Amino acid sequence: MNDIKWTQKEKSISRAAFDKAYRNECDDIIRTVRRKSGSLSEPKEIWELEDYLFKKRKEIDIKYDYRYSVLIHVFGRLVREGWNTMDGLKGLEEEKIRKIQIIANMDF
Amino acid sequence: MNDIKWTQKEKSISRAAFDKAYRNECDDIIRTVRRKSGSLSEPKEIWELEDYLFKKRKEIDIKYDYRYSVLIHVFGRLVREGWNTMDGLKGLEEEKIRKIQIIANMDF
Repeated sequence: MNDIKWTQKEKSISRAAFDKAYRNECDDIIRTVRRKSGSLSEPKEIWELEDYLFKKRKEIDIKYDYRYSVLIHVFGRLVREGWNTMDGLKGLEEEKIRKIQIIANMDF
Repeated sequence: MNDIKWTQKEKSISRAAFDKAYRNECDDIIRTVRRKSGSLSEPKEIWELEDYLFKKRKEIDIKYDYRYSVLIHVFGRLVREGWNTMDGLKGLEEEKIRKIQIIANMDF
């Protein structure tokens, strides 16, 4: 998919959708951290929280890759995981939408 | 200090004091995590919390070293930092108490 072209308008839609997904997922992490920290009582739970955050950080570092060469796949995954909706990608050309939808529907 | 002998009674006092200090410090971390997570709003603050926990984990792994060859130094540090009190070490022989107190009073 390296040769897919992105118009200026598409780049703008993509950036906004990408940032929104990142924000959605981070908000979800914040809710989880609040819930976990509210029920912290044993020392080992502190380190479990650190494990959780460490894992999320690595996962997010890998997942949120804004290179146009991989963006179709990235959006497919973000839609599949619920951080983006197909609606949020409206305005991208039909072929891109179709590919993103296929990837989003894949059963991993 | 490698040749310092610890009686059974001293070992029991030390273990209890050591565990209490660990618990005190972990409780302090729990309070900090609750405060920080309560005010989380931006994604970067999530990763700052992870940095904090990662740093604390390393610090605690190094600090809480229960080898009798280093325990005088460990207690000195724990008293200096406020996780143990000299009162909690009552029952150790006078020479150990004196050394712990000297280390606790050192200005780092």
